[in-house]
Amino acid sequence: MERVNAFILSRTGSSVTMIPEVANHLISSGGKRLRPMLTLATASLCGYEGDGDVRLAAAVEFMHTATLLHDDVVDDSDMRRGKLAARKLWGNEASVLVGDFLLGQAFKMMVEVGSLEALRILSEAAAVIAEGEVMQLSAAKNTATTEDDYLAVVRGKTAELFAAACEVGPVIAGRPKEEQAAARSYGMNLGVAFQLVDDALDYGGREAKLGKKVGDDFREGKITLPVVLAYRRGDAQERAFWKRTLENGEADDADLQEAIRLLGKHGAIDDTIARARHYGAIARDALGLFREKPEARALIDVVEFVTARAH
Amino acid sequence: MERVNAFILSRTGSSVTMIPEVANHLISSGGKRLRPMLTLATASLCGYEGDGDVRLAAAVEFMHTATLLHDDVVDDSDMRRGKLAARKLWGNEASVLVGDFLLGQAFKMMVEVGSLEALRILSEAAAVIAEGEVMQLSAAKNTATTEDDYLAVVRGKTAELFAAACEVGPVIAGRPKEEQAAARSYGMNLGVAFQLVDDALDYGGREAKLGKKVGDDFREGKITLPVVLAYRRGDAQERAFWKRTLENGEADDADLQEAIRLLGKHGAIDDTIARARHYGAIARDALGLFREKPEARALIDVVEFVTARAH
Repeated sequence: MERVNAFILSRTGSSVTMIPEVANHLISSGGKRLRPMLTLATASLCGYEGDGDVRLAAAVEFMHTATLLHDDVVDDSDMRRGKLAARKLWGNEASVLVGDFLLGQAFKMMVEVGSLEALRILSEAAAVIAEGEVMQLSAAKNTATTEDDYLAVVRGKTAELFAAACEVGPVIAGRPKEEQAAARSYGMNLGVAFQLVDDALDYGGREAKLGKKVGDDFREGKITLPVVLAYRRGDAQERAFWKRTLENGEADDADLQEAIRLLGKHGAIDDTIARARHYGAIARDALGLFREKPEARALIDVVEFVTARAH
Repeated sequence: MERVNAFILSRTGSSVTMIPEVANHLISSGGKRLRPMLTLATASLCGYEGDGDVRLAAAVEFMHTATLLHDDVVDDSDMRRGKLAARKLWGNEASVLVGDFLLGQAFKMMVEVGSLEALRILSEAAAVIAEGEVMQLSAAKNTATTEDDYLAVVRGKTAELFAAACEVGPVIAGRPKEEQAAARSYGMNLGVAFQLVDDALDYGGREAKLGKKVGDDFREGKITLPVVLAYRRGDAQERAFWKRTLENGEADDADLQEAIRLLGKHGAIDDTIARARHYGAIARDALGLFREKPEARALIDVVEFVTARAH
């Protein structure tokens, strides 16, 4: 990971000084680097010995950073990882354009690795992620969103990058399709579990731990799984509450407290975490093929880490 | 359901005597009529008062019967619902063609109802089901199948018809998109739960209860979720066993006993049922919108019935 970090820093450089400023604001703000770690871990799991994994891992982190920059613009967010969002410091235009720059850099790094198959996987992921974000745009503020609809959003906007980050490991190691599919399945289900736990934490995590404020999703009118469950389990009066606060965007702090009370009443947070565990279990089983390898243990620990964040 | 049964019998008639013979052999063989019941129940849930629901329910059962006839040919099955499969009595050709006849009749009934939207949903389902069967053809005998791959097969070959059967209820009742999506989500997840329980029962159900022999999936080299889990949880020697018996089709009765032992060793049957319960929980939540309606209780009971079959 040190080599990935060094490589990332070396590639945010530009003679346009605003670019490294904006990029490094976010990149050096203490993200978990979970996605690039997955690329390194799956490559190592598959016995890869070159240095393409470092470039692909950095590319994955750039893709992730680019989507964060763009997300904050789309969602009008003020905070990101406990700091002011880049858009609050440099504006929306800079956030959009630096995001595009990072995406371009990501593709350049992938090309340097020279694996057309890895390029295909990551560029497809870029398209699917954008598609997931657009789906979320339509689903946002719409209390009619079903759990299946929401899972499709999560697969696109979050889990697809996890899946691609894991799939390129066996690909550059030249491993058979069977192992590529297993790594992809691990990443996809880990990503879903990760997002669902995130959704639960948004209504219950401590602010410091979360790096953003409790209730951000609520304030932004985002329909996430806890709300999907509470909405469907609630009576007509409760549904009217969710419609007013999420669809019409009239939520204040007292509403957030009421939302948290309703989520608790219907067990929506606990059941969101139970759903996340299901996907975690699938991720763990997907790794079975590699079970004899010591690196598999670390990847199984990631599943535990992701689902244990909920406590 | 009596009206559906009468309607079904009235529509298997043909001056080609083999057609009613083959069709009635299967149709009157005591299937659970679960799918047409779902259409009646969701239509009634949505306050539908016409008689289109009976025709659509019959169409759904015809589509289901057609796929069973075709499946038995594709799988070389000898038994169906505790009786000899139609193909053993009348041959493969008759089974294929009578299946086509039933599919044609199903579309005629749908047209009679006059809802273009219901037609669209059910004809799309017909295409998706066929697609699911073809996917299974490629996945069959391939131990590399991941849990995600397998779930995609299940969504296509089984759950899609459940979803469509449920979705047309609110559609002919003229209910809003929100309720259509909820009914569809209920059916889709119920269908996944149903198929996973079926997969578990294939290795553990009593023959009389199952209407087919224990281990049929194994003998046919079908990769189902219990096998996906046991394969990934097993060591190299166990994987060689699964490859030999399923991929090379060299399974005898002693192999079946060994397969059942390995499934038990890895908790693969129990975990298949735990996964089914997850989808059952999603189905139950999807119905939340209708919770005030008494008919919703019956549909929730179906979820219980489907997951309780495992005991």
